[in-house]
Amino acid sequence: MVQLNFEKSADGLIPAIVQEYATGQVLMLAYINRLSWEKTLQTGKAHYWSRSRKALWLKGESSGHVQLIRQILVDCDDDTVIFQVEQLGGAACHTGHKSCFYRRLVGDTLQVEGEKIFDPALVYGKAK
Amino acid sequence: MVQLNFEKSADGLIPAIVQEYATGQVLMLAYINRLSWEKTLQTGKAHYWSRSRKALWLKGESSGHVQLIRQILVDCDDDTVIFQVEQLGGAACHTGHKSCFYRRLVGDTLQVEGEKIFDPALVYGKAK
Repeated sequence: MVQLNFEKSADGLIPAIVQEYATGQVLMLAYINRLSWEKTLQTGKAHYWSRSRKALWLKGESSGHVQLIRQILVDCDDDTVIFQVEQLGGAACHTGHKSCFYRRLVGDTLQVEGEKIFDPALVYGKAK
Repeated sequence: MVQLNFEKSADGLIPAIVQEYATGQVLMLAYINRLSWEKTLQTGKAHYWSRSRKALWLKGESSGHVQLIRQILVDCDDDTVIFQVEQLGGAACHTGHKSCFYRRLVGDTLQVEGEKIFDPALVYGKAK
């Protein structure tokens, strides 16, 4: 198994940039540790490390919107990866947008671009 | 000036994904702190924070290969940004490759893809 430089950061985490395989659109960024990396390679589904929950995180575990790995790129320092994925459900962001990067800097404001693909209240079963 | 959530990480740094504006290709990932963010917005040239040198880093300072900001996207949590840039000199990676992500995972190996755009020894003036 290809080894990454998890030791470079104090917390053993490195960033994973997530791109839609078909279009190259950047969908999100999350963090992986050694366990996430191994689980991702073993299963073909993107696994991250949740910094808030301090736990292994199979993306789509609750929503069913998993990310199927199509290709992985590794950077020159072995401390960042790109997961090129097929995003089931069509949206990667917990807000329901296709990409977490749905806001563009325009002067001193952030302008929302791109429609919501799903309603988070329905997908995650929360009424708020 | 739009504020980002630099407080989220212990070291005050958040990742900046760098994309080629014209094609969407991911060129590199680097880190920014509040000072880098301000300098980037003020100058229109990508500034990062060098974790190894612990110093503000104008990308291209020594090589002349600066990154001209064309568009900036901000994620849902205000803790990751995308710089969409015009990369002067044609290559973002210190190895001379266009992108730092020039290796693809194939089984248990990393396969090099993409040609070198420049010779680092010539650009950075080091004989090794």
